[in-house]
Amino acid sequence: MDDSEFDVIEQYFLPLGEWSLGDTRVGPGDDCAVVQVPDSRQLCISTDSFIEGVHFPTGANGQLVARRSMAAAISDLAAMGATPFGMTGALTLVAVSAPWLKQFSSVVADLIKRWQIPLLGGNLSRGSELSVTWTVMGLVEPGRYLLRSGAQADDDIYISGYPGRAGYALAGVLQGREVAANLEKHYSHPTPRLELGKLINGLASAAIDVSDGLLADLQHLLTASGVGARIDLASLSDDVELFAACGQADGVRLALTAGDDYEVCFTAPIEQRKVLKQISEQLQLPLTRIGKIIQSKVVEFENVPRQFDPTTLTAQPGYRHFK
Amino acid sequence: MDDSEFDVIEQYFLPLGEWSLGDTRVGPGDDCAVVQVPDSRQLCISTDSFIEGVHFPTGANGQLVARRSMAAAISDLAAMGATPFGMTGALTLVAVSAPWLKQFSSVVADLIKRWQIPLLGGNLSRGSELSVTWTVMGLVEPGRYLLRSGAQADDDIYISGYPGRAGYALAGVLQGREVAANLEKHYSHPTPRLELGKLINGLASAAIDVSDGLLADLQHLLTASGVGARIDLASLSDDVELFAACGQADGVRLALTAGDDYEVCFTAPIEQRKVLKQISEQLQLPLTRIGKIIQSKVVEFENVPRQFDPTTLTAQPGYRHFK
Repeated sequence: MDDSEFDVIEQYFLPLGEWSLGDTRVGPGDDCAVVQVPDSRQLCISTDSFIEGVHFPTGANGQLVARRSMAAAISDLAAMGATPFGMTGALTLVAVSAPWLKQFSSVVADLIKRWQIPLLGGNLSRGSELSVTWTVMGLVEPGRYLLRSGAQADDDIYISGYPGRAGYALAGVLQGREVAANLEKHYSHPTPRLELGKLINGLASAAIDVSDGLLADLQHLLTASGVGARIDLASLSDDVELFAACGQADGVRLALTAGDDYEVCFTAPIEQRKVLKQISEQLQLPLTRIGKIIQSKVVEFENVPRQFDPTTLTAQPGYRHFK
Repeated sequence: MDDSEFDVIEQYFLPLGEWSLGDTRVGPGDDCAVVQVPDSRQLCISTDSFIEGVHFPTGANGQLVARRSMAAAISDLAAMGATPFGMTGALTLVAVSAPWLKQFSSVVADLIKRWQIPLLGGNLSRGSELSVTWTVMGLVEPGRYLLRSGAQADDDIYISGYPGRAGYALAGVLQGREVAANLEKHYSHPTPRLELGKLINGLASAAIDVSDGLLADLQHLLTASGVGARIDLASLSDDVELFAACGQADGVRLALTAGDDYEVCFTAPIEQRKVLKQISEQLQLPLTRIGKIIQSKVVEFENVPRQFDPTTLTAQPGYRHFK
């Protein structure tokens, strides 16, 4: 690193390390950060990279990159039912742009407080491609975490929030179309479902972070659990705003396959329906029951809209960004 | 992610997550890994990115990228005096090359065991630039870690190992020159000084991981401690093999500025000389006393070789890779 790199770190990133939850003994700036881990806790850890032109559009502003990348990374903690504990970030810049860095760092400063996840350290490099890699850590009580592998036959399958809205908004942005604010915000201001993850921890039988599309990520949950699913496609049209904007066939397709939501897909025994309804009301967050787990290792669809061909789904399992 | 990305993860990386220190409750493959943190420990954490053409030569084989990037990342734990606990890796590939992935993953498999640092999770992306970002975690007893900020006037300054050899070897590799195996191995097979870090934890007054060149990183230690240094350049010629290969002036320049070593620079009170000599013998690792801390916030040089102009050093503080 040379002086300009240290200047960027000092100006934009070292101040972000000053906020902590009280556990930080050494913040960013030494060889390592040091944090006190509460006794009798297990640490959940996940790492995610976000690359310009792959995970966000080329030329995206610093706010969007910070918001979407942080939400996506922290969404993995939500899906484990973990409480955020800290994160590190590795940023690779093609060039030093003060406005971009100001946008990026001010959103990070805001979100680490909003989502209560201190920035413990970072790395700044120059490269030929803009990217950011977040490593997030959370805490759970011993053994109390949500896995992908616990779904049982007859369990209900739920999806949180508004699957498909972010994908609809992204398509609009890329095509230069105007998108209603109530749909657009799910792309530009995604929210990791941290409160939900904690509330369903202990009552859900399995959970997965949705980031590659509902159907693709549900498939990972089904594989890990050794089961199948019957999906009621009519349940997806509960999102009347999305369906009004794009029609039934596109609405179903987006809700099932768009890889731009950071929602939680989870399963729970039927007897939890009442509690989950209360949680949904408490959080003012839709928890849509989209189907049920079946023993047979297949995915079946019910109430298929007339204009929609479900065989196209197998050729499009989420967002493909790897050749 | 699509199928080919999952295939790469399954074939090359999931097997690496099977080895653990006994604390891993959930390995790679779910939304997060889960590890049990021993009670009454503090967690040290650091993240580092390594980018093709910046941190390693374009076209480098998978072994070299794995060895050098892992050593560099883990060297930060060594400089804190921490015991490795776990790591995550985020790999960005331009294309899927089975031979390269085999080289890379087999070296990672070897080194996580050698350095006792389980692979807890990872991320695989496609991008236009090959890079790997490691986030390393280590444990210390509460308050027992090495900072950059504790150096006091009259403390001795030490450097571990063989500063300059890796830089000499890299220059040889880039120029197509043959380099003696005993020098070359410090470039191709760097070793994080984990045992050293643990043994000097509690007796060194300050320490820093050297990765940007001895002088540049010493300067960070001096700044953090609010002191200066008097460096005896004659001490560097203890490395007779390096000096025989490249001459006195280049030997001094490389030892002070080459950014390719992963050694530990540290300071210690004079009364620790005897113990440090024993540690050096125990580890069969040179601990070269290169000077002393002074109150005045400057860096002075003694015994400057006749062919060597120390004023060139201020214009070359380590490897500059940021414009």
